[in-house]
Amino acid sequence: MCELLGMSANVPTDICFSFTGLVQRGGGTGPHKDGWGITFYEGKGCRTFKDPQPSFNSPIARLVQEYPIKSCSVIAHIRQANRGMVALENTHPFTRELWGRNWTYAHNGQLSGYRSLQTGQFRPVGETDSEKAFCWLLHQLTQRYPRTPAKMDSVFRFIATLAAQLREKGVFNMLLSDGRYVMAFCSTNLFWITRRAPFGKATLLDQDVEIDFVQETTPNDVVTVIATQPLTGNETWQKIMPGEWALFCLGERVV
Amino acid sequence: MCELLGMSANVPTDICFSFTGLVQRGGGTGPHKDGWGITFYEGKGCRTFKDPQPSFNSPIARLVQEYPIKSCSVIAHIRQANRGMVALENTHPFTRELWGRNWTYAHNGQLSGYRSLQTGQFRPVGETDSEKAFCWLLHQLTQRYPRTPAKMDSVFRFIATLAAQLREKGVFNMLLSDGRYVMAFCSTNLFWITRRAPFGKATLLDQDVEIDFVQETTPNDVVTVIATQPLTGNETWQKIMPGEWALFCLGERVV
Repeated sequence: MCELLGMSANVPTDICFSFTGLVQRGGGTGPHKDGWGITFYEGKGCRTFKDPQPSFNSPIARLVQEYPIKSCSVIAHIRQANRGMVALENTHPFTRELWGRNWTYAHNGQLSGYRSLQTGQFRPVGETDSEKAFCWLLHQLTQRYPRTPAKMDSVFRFIATLAAQLREKGVFNMLLSDGRYVMAFCSTNLFWITRRAPFGKATLLDQDVEIDFVQETTPNDVVTVIATQPLTGNETWQKIMPGEWALFCLGERVV
Repeated sequence: MCELLGMSANVPTDICFSFTGLVQRGGGTGPHKDGWGITFYEGKGCRTFKDPQPSFNSPIARLVQEYPIKSCSVIAHIRQANRGMVALENTHPFTRELWGRNWTYAHNGQLSGYRSLQTGQFRPVGETDSEKAFCWLLHQLTQRYPRTPAKMDSVFRFIATLAAQLREKGVFNMLLSDGRYVMAFCSTNLFWITRRAPFGKATLLDQDVEIDFVQETTPNDVVTVIATQPLTGNETWQKIMPGEWALFCLGERVV
């Protein structure tokens, strides 16, 4: 299994604190030693750092922890390989262009019977069930919406029906973003928390780190973090029920 | 104008030395202050570091200089903005999937009359003439080769005819790679050098750095570097004539 981490915020926010917790699970406090990746959006552009090596001793992971890249939408993943060998092309998140935007996707779980999925013009580069499912999902979207759709909430409702079909093939926890929206589909485990004023202190479960969000934020900031398991011990995280999903935009839950 | 840097090698090789020279031109010794990017292939996977900030004081550029990522195919670019604002989505190189491989592209120059180029299923994310031309090129390839082509030298010959058409719209120096091949198309300026045994010493033109390749290589290594201008002062670089192109695979020139 793998761990997912996502963020949606109304002002560019750094994810150093949450990423520090996740990184420790990459071979430190957790078994997810087969690579990690993180995608930050800056407007329509995005940048991805990834490594097929364990995150807890990766120099690139250290850069990401130390260098506060600020973003309104972030998708991250650490991997314990099940399908597909340990290689860069099998490392999440995956990003593809659709409708002139970068779509970024990370999957936690394992699928059976995925090889017959039709992916049209979107061909997988690696061998994972995850990337194949992503390509199928994008292909389904182009079939349903040959032109750029205007109503994005309808698009995400359609994506949820596709994700539900994939869940029938196994475990399919997913984070998906086009840079504006961050969608979380829960197959087994996904939690989220929205932090806003009055901000308090939070303590990471995986490392002896405490952060005082009052020092790091302004009173208008709204920041949602989504993760496979709660990352902090002294806050209340919301569970997304299996088969359900949530959509976030600028830090707020919109669906 | 911008500067291009490419590498093709028969063993995974780090590009720290050449990248150090290029980075200095990013606002240090050169005027290319509007971002930089570099893509390293590892097998079919690739990783890109990019920044809309000047390279010479970018923490991410420093990481790339200090952390010897070894690769057989590399494409890099530093940018002085002409078309498209300074933003991450306008920062080269651009990578898109075609035929189940990651294709990476960087352009130096400026085009006119590019807005009418048809790009089919490949839509630009940013506003640059460069990305539009890349999308057109990929679309032309899918029209000519609906299925994955077997003879890659024919494919690159066809790409050269497309690049020649783009050159009619302005200046079009290009580096393009699918991870195995590195293609260099020259519109005005592109130089290359192949280093092999017996290796000597080289001195960067842009910074007081010398490297003794004997210390860094084995006798079987073959490494080609391609750049807008020669990066070293004590070696003989080959010029690609305007309108001509070269194709490299595993360090050797193959066309």
